[in-house]
Amino acid sequence: MTKLAETPQPPYYAVIFTSLRTHADNGYNEMSEIMLDLASKQDGFLGVDSARNKVGITVSYWKDTESIKNWKLNSMHTIAREKGRSEWYSQFRVRIAMVERDYKFEK
Amino acid sequence: MTKLAETPQPPYYAVIFTSLRTHADNGYNEMSEIMLDLASKQDGFLGVDSARNKVGITVSYWKDTESIKNWKLNSMHTIAREKGRSEWYSQFRVRIAMVERDYKFEK
Repeated sequence: MTKLAETPQPPYYAVIFTSLRTHADNGYNEMSEIMLDLASKQDGFLGVDSARNKVGITVSYWKDTESIKNWKLNSMHTIAREKGRSEWYSQFRVRIAMVERDYKFEK
Repeated sequence: MTKLAETPQPPYYAVIFTSLRTHADNGYNEMSEIMLDLASKQDGFLGVDSARNKVGITVSYWKDTESIKNWKLNSMHTIAREKGRSEWYSQFRVRIAMVERDYKFEK
């Protein structure tokens, strides 16, 4: 079942990744799944939401900037990011943001 | 042409809206377009990125918390939010976050 990410009380961090893809596939979907799985095992990982039409948006949630930095230094993730720049993305933006407040609605 | 939102140098704010839809349509797409158009005319609005598969993610960017608050108080937006709760969304989360750093990649 599709679910929205659940996160603890703020403050925590969000990494907002927005992108446009190239037409190249070359293992993109497989790598996406591997990266999601690997990210979810990192210390400080809290959750992730992801959607793509033409624009892709992935927002991952983290305990603090230290856990974001450690994930950035992960060697598999570094390889994936290099492939992202060379093959999969024509453009992307990364925004590191501190979540100050949140609220939710459920029926 | 599809574009990613362009934003000024941080700090600025992001409102991360994640949602799951009901099956009800009842003017959802029309209202989405009206709200995007109206939001883009508000003081302090910087840009927006949006995508939906099963999960929908809309990230809007704002100059400060004051401009976010003013948009929340907008009467048309208030009506749309009420319809969102009563008809269009089965779940949503809203996260208000201060963007501290960002970087971009373009081919």
